[in-house]
Amino acid sequence: MTTAQENEILTRTGPGTPMGALFRRYWLPVLLASEIAEPEGPPVRVKLLSERLLAFRDTRGRVGLIDEFCAHRGVSLWFGRNEDCGIRCAYHGWKYDVNGQCIDVPSEPEESGFCRKVRLASYPCIERGGVVWTYMGHAEKRPPEPAYEWAAVPEASRHVSKRIQECNYLQALEGGLDSIHSSFLHRYTVGDDPLLKRDPESAAMLRGDARPVFLPTISAGGLHVSTRRNVGDDRYFWRVTQFLMPCFNLFPPYGDNPSGGHAFVPIDDESCRIFSIDSHPRRELSELEQGAAAAGYGIHVPLVPGTFMPVANKRNDYLIDREAQRARKTFSGVLRVGIQDAAVQESMGPIEDRSRESLVSTDNGIIMTRKRLLDAARASAEGRDPPGLDPVAQKARAVSMVTPRDVPFAKALAEHEPASAAVEAAE
Amino acid sequence: MTTAQENEILTRTGPGTPMGALFRRYWLPVLLASEIAEPEGPPVRVKLLSERLLAFRDTRGRVGLIDEFCAHRGVSLWFGRNEDCGIRCAYHGWKYDVNGQCIDVPSEPEESGFCRKVRLASYPCIERGGVVWTYMGHAEKRPPEPAYEWAAVPEASRHVSKRIQECNYLQALEGGLDSIHSSFLHRYTVGDDPLLKRDPESAAMLRGDARPVFLPTISAGGLHVSTRRNVGDDRYFWRVTQFLMPCFNLFPPYGDNPSGGHAFVPIDDESCRIFSIDSHPRRELSELEQGAAAAGYGIHVPLVPGTFMPVANKRNDYLIDREAQRARKTFSGVLRVGIQDAAVQESMGPIEDRSRESLVSTDNGIIMTRKRLLDAARASAEGRDPPGLDPVAQKARAVSMVTPRDVPFAKALAEHEPASAAVEAAE
Amino acid sequence: MTTAQENEILTRTGPGTPMGALFRRYWLPVLLASEIAEPEGPPVRVKLLSERLLAFRDTRGRVGLIDEFCAHRGVSLWFGRNEDCGIRCAYHGWKYDVNGQCIDVPSEPEESGFCRKVRLASYPCIERGGVVWTYMGHAEKRPPEPAYEWAAVPEASRHVSKRIQECNYLQALEGGLDSIHSSFLHRYTVGDDPLLKRDPESAAMLRGDARPVFLPTISAGGLHVSTRRNVGDDRYFWRVTQFLMPCFNLFPPYGDNPSGGHAFVPIDDESCRIFSIDSHPRRELSELEQGAAAAGYGIHVPLVPGTFMPVANKRNDYLIDREAQRARKTFSGVLRVGIQDAAVQESMGPIEDRSRESLVSTDNGIIMTRKRLLDAARASAEGRDPPGLDPVAQKARAVSMVTPRDVPFAKALAEHEPASAAVEAAE
Repeated sequence: MTTAQENEILTRTGPGTPMGALFRRYWLPVLLASEIAEPEGPPVRVKLLSERLLAFRDTRGRVGLIDEFCAHRGVSLWFGRNEDCGIRCAYHGWKYDVNGQCIDVPSEPEESGFCRKVRLASYPCIERGGVVWTYMGHAEKRPPEPAYEWAAVPEASRHVSKRIQECNYLQALEGGLDSIHSSFLHRYTVGDDPLLKRDPESAAMLRGDARPVFLPTISAGGLHVSTRRNVGDDRYFWRVTQFLMPCFNLFPPYGDNPSGGHAFVPIDDESCRIFSIDSHPRRELSELEQGAAAAGYGIHVPLVPGTFMPVANKRNDYLIDREAQRARKTFSGVLRVGIQDAAVQESMGPIEDRSRESLVSTDNGIIMTRKRLLDAARASAEGRDPPGLDPVAQKARAVSMVTPRDVPFAKALAEHEPASAAVEAAE
Repeated sequence: MTTAQENEILTRTGPGTPMGALFRRYWLPVLLASEIAEPEGPPVRVKLLSERLLAFRDTRGRVGLIDEFCAHRGVSLWFGRNEDCGIRCAYHGWKYDVNGQCIDVPSEPEESGFCRKVRLASYPCIERGGVVWTYMGHAEKRPPEPAYEWAAVPEASRHVSKRIQECNYLQALEGGLDSIHSSFLHRYTVGDDPLLKRDPESAAMLRGDARPVFLPTISAGGLHVSTRRNVGDDRYFWRVTQFLMPCFNLFPPYGDNPSGGHAFVPIDDESCRIFSIDSHPRRELSELEQGAAAAGYGIHVPLVPGTFMPVANKRNDYLIDREAQRARKTFSGVLRVGIQDAAVQESMGPIEDRSRESLVSTDNGIIMTRKRLLDAARASAEGRDPPGLDPVAQKARAVSMVTPRDVPFAKALAEHEPASAAVEAAE
Repeated sequence: MTTAQENEILTRTGPGTPMGALFRRYWLPVLLASEIAEPEGPPVRVKLLSERLLAFRDTRGRVGLIDEFCAHRGVSLWFGRNEDCGIRCAYHGWKYDVNGQCIDVPSEPEESGFCRKVRLASYPCIERGGVVWTYMGHAEKRPPEPAYEWAAVPEASRHVSKRIQECNYLQALEGGLDSIHSSFLHRYTVGDDPLLKRDPESAAMLRGDARPVFLPTISAGGLHVSTRRNVGDDRYFWRVTQFLMPCFNLFPPYGDNPSGGHAFVPIDDESCRIFSIDSHPRRELSELEQGAAAAGYGIHVPLVPGTFMPVANKRNDYLIDREAQRARKTFSGVLRVGIQDAAVQESMGPIEDRSRESLVSTDNGIIMTRKRLLDAARASAEGRDPPGLDPVAQKARAVSMVTPRDVPFAKALAEHEPASAAVEAAE
C-alpha cells in the first residue's frame, strides 16, 4: 500500500529532502531546557534532522543552536569555552554568539573586521514547557510560537522526559497513533501504573465492547485517531488520540490521570529523540505521579545515568524476561511501556520496509498519517502552508467521551475538546 | 588455482546464489534441540544461509522454523508469545503456527478468512541426534531424512556442542578436511586430552613415517580424504577423513576414542555455526569423555555463558599465551583445538581471498572439495541430484586401518567402513 | 584554499597513491624497539600506509617487517612461532625469514626447492633512537639512514612514546606545525609541567608582545615555521619550529627543557601512530623529566595498559572535566597536552574536509606544509628527489633565539642552528 518510493520520501528528513523541508516548517523540540540550565554551562551536541549542531546558553541566558563545527578548521565547538556571551573554540579561540555570528578571531586585528564576515548556520530557539524548541526553516516563513497545551501549563502540572530510539522517527510516530497495539503489547503492564491505570467506569466500557470501531478522521492540525465502542444501546464511548503535524501525538487519559503525549523528533534517518510528556490541564501532578514518571513508569523509561539511552535497549535484548512473559506479567517479556514500544519498533530495522507490509483496517490511522505527511510535504513544496502551524490547531487535546449515538462525531468532539470547538467556530 | 569468480560462487549461500541453491538441497543442522527443549518455551532467532528465521517449539511439541518478522508490520516475532499452538506477535497479536500459516488476526472478524491468506516463509524441521534439522529447498525435491551415524546412535553415545565462528563456512570446512594442519596447529595440544589422545600403536605408526602420502579420493557422498603411512615393508596405515556434502566432516579416532565430526553451517557469508560432535558407534561415552566435552576439551570449546560465542575469540586475540607458546605447551599460543582452528581461520578475514593462495600437494583435499562443491552446484542447477543425498552415503564412517600393501584402497575401505561397503555393493 | 581534490591527494597514503609514493621515499618510524626487544619474542602486527605487516626480531636479533599473511592460505603470521631465525606459520608450518623469504615448507621435499620460490613482501628495518624504522620504497632509491638529532643522542638523553590517534596523519601533523594554537588549546596546562614549563626570560618576552608575527619559510628539509616577537626596540625573539618531510616536527624548548618533536605516521587514511619525543642535545634527561614523560606529562599521554590507546579518547569524550574548564585549569576541559590535540583533531572527523575551511594568516604554516607535500609528491612522481632525504637537512633543530633586528632571519638561524648552517655552507 505504501510504495518503496513513498517510504523513502516519508522517512528521509535531512537537508534537501521533501520531508526534511516539511519538518523545517515547524518549531521542533531540541532538548530539555534542564540540559542547558545554567548560563555559561557546558554546551550540548545535538544532531537534528541529520544536521550536527551545538546548543548552549550564553552569559545572558540566551540559548543558541549553531553549527557544531568551527568555520576555521572544522573543530567541534563542543570543546569550546562558553564565556562572555559566546562560545570560544578550544583550538584557536574563534568565538561565536548564539546567532552563529563570529565575534572574535584573536589572531586577526580587530580593525580588519574579518570576524564579521564569518557566520555559522544557526537556528532561533525558544523555551516552552521545559523544552528548548527551534525553527530550522526560512526566516520569512517562521510560524507562531508553539502553542501545544502541555507546553503552556504550569511547570508543576507537567513532566517531560527524553530518550533515544534507534529507528526512524516514523516507526515511533506510527506506534504513537496506533492505539490498537495497547491491547497486545502493553497488556498486563498498565494495571497498577499511577500514570496509566484505568478508572472503573472506563474499564467497564472497554470490557463491554471487545471489537471497537477504528475511525481516524482529518483534523485541523493532523488527525483525530478515534476508537468507538458501544455503550448500552444508545451511547458511544469515544477515545480520541491526536496526531499533530509533523511528529506529535496526544493520547487520551483514563479518569483523572494526566494526559500523555510525545514528540518523535528525527536525529537522523535511523534514530530519533522521543520526548514523552505527562501533563494535566487542570491540576498539578501529584507527588506519586511525578515520582513515577521520574522512576521510568508510565510512558517514561529508566535511562543509563548521564545519557538518554534506555537501560533496556537492543544491545541487551531489552532485558527480556521470559518468565514474566510466561506468567502474564508482561505480554512481550519486555517491561515498561516505552521499552515495549522501542523493542518492537526497533526490531523492524532502522527503517521499516513499508512496501512489504500487510495492512488491515485498524491500520487506517497509520495509512492516513502517511498520506497527511506526504500531502503536507507536497503542499509545502508547492508554496502552500502545511497543516498544524496554527496555534489554535496545536491546542488540540486528546479526550475520552461518552455521547449519544445520534450526535455526529465532529459535533460531539467540539463539545468536549477546546481546539476542535475553536477550529469549528473559526470555519 | 581458485579464481576470484570461483571463490565468489563457493562462498555465497544466500537466496538466489548457486551455492545457496546447493545447500538448499540438503537437511542442515539449525540449532541444538536443547535450545528449544520445552513446548511453549522461548523462541530462538536463527540466521541461516543469510535468511533471518525464528525457531520455536509449539504447545504440541512441534518445531517451527519461520520468517522472523511478522507479515503485518515487520516486527520480530522473537518478542512474541509462544502459546496455544502458535507464536503470537507482541505488537498486534497476529498468530502463526509452525508452518508459518497465520491463524489469528485479532482485529479482523474470523469469518472474513483474512488470516488464511497470510503465510510466512517456513521450513520443515526434524530432530535427529540432539539437533534440529531443516530443509530449505523445494518441497518436491525434499530428500530422505538425515542418516549420519552420529545422529542415529543413542543419546548416551554422543556429545554435540555448537559455536559461532566469525568467517565464511568454507574456511572452517576446509580446515576440517585438512588433516595435515594437525601436526602443526594442534601439536602439543592433544597429548592428554581424553577425547583426542593417541593409542600407543597408532602413535608408533605415526612416528614411523614422518612424510605420509596424502590421497584424497571421490566418495559417494563427498570425499575420502586419506593419509597413508608405511608400516614395515608390507603394510599401510591409512587414516580416512570423510567429507560429506555439503558441509560435514568426520575424522578418524585413535584407539577406542569417540569419533569426531563437524557440521559447518553458514549463518551468512561472513560467519558460520559449527556443530562439533563426539560419538561412538559401539558404546556410551564415558563420564570422563562427557565431562571433557562439556568443559570445552576435545573439539569443543568453552563458551561465554548464555551464548555460543567462544570465551576466547578475536576480540581478545583468542587469549593468546606467548609464554605457553614459547614453552611448547601450544604451537600457536592459543589453547584448545577448536579455538586454534578459529584463530587461524578467522585471521584469513571474513572471506579468504582464494585467488591469492599458493597451494601445494597436501592441499589436494581442499582443491577436490572445492571442485566437488562447484560440480555439485552445477549439477543441481542443471536439474541433476548432487551427491550426498543418499542415506547410504551419509552413513560413512571415518576410519583408521592397517592393510596389506597389495590390497587396493577401495577394497580395503569396503572391508572396514560400512557405508563404503554398502555403496560398493549397490554399484 | 585547499580543494577537495588536493585534500584527497594530501590525505591518501595507501599503495598506488601519489602521497603514498612520497611517503615511501623516506625512512619511517614503525614501532618502539622495546616492543620487539627480545630475539624470538612475540611478533607485532603493524599496519603502515594501509599495508598490513608483521614486525619481529629473529633469533640473531635481526628485525623483519613482512606481509602479515602467509603466502599459502592467507593465515596471519601473528600466531606464528618466532624460532630458529624465522617465523613459522601456526597453520601448516611454513617458515619465513626477516626478508620475507620462505625458508621451509614442511610438506614439500627440501630438494624440490619449492620454498625458495615463495617470498612475502618485506621492508628493510633499522633501529635508531629507540625506534624501528623502515623504508617501503624501491631498493634503488633507498635513502641514507635517518639522521634526526633525537635519534642520534644517547639513550639517556631521550624519551620516546607512541600513541594511536584516530584521524588522518595530516590533521595531526598540521597541529604540530601550528604553534599559535598553544596559546589557546594548551593554555593553563604547561605552567608546572617539568617538560613544558617556561623560563622567566622567555615568559617575559612572550608577555612583552601579544601579537607575534608568524613567518614560515622554506627550509632544506621542509619548513621553518617561525614566530617573531619584538624585544625592546632593537631585538627580535624568534621561535623556530621545524617541519621535516614528510611527517616530522620539532618544536623549540623553553630554557633548558628537553626539545620536543613528533613523527605522525599513517596507519591508514583514518588513523595514525604518533611518536612523541623528548630529547636533549647536550645532557641526559633528569629523573624528574623521565618520570614525567613516562607518567604521560609533557607531550606524552597516559595509555591503556598493554595498548597504545590513550586512556582519554573519543569513546569517553577524552574524560572532559567541565569544572576544571570553568576554573581555568584547562582551556578545553581536556587534560594533558597530547589529549587536547587528539580531542580537537579527532573532532574534525577521520579526514578533515579542507575545502570548507576559513584560513587566516596564522595558518600560513599549514598552507605551506600542504604545498610542500603536494610539490614533493609531484617531484617524486616526475622522478626527482623530494626534500628531506639528506642527512644534513634532517639534523635540523628547533630553536629559540634573540637577535638584533638588522640581522636577516636566515643568517641569524645559521648562527643558532647547526643544520641550517651546514645547509648554508653547502650551498
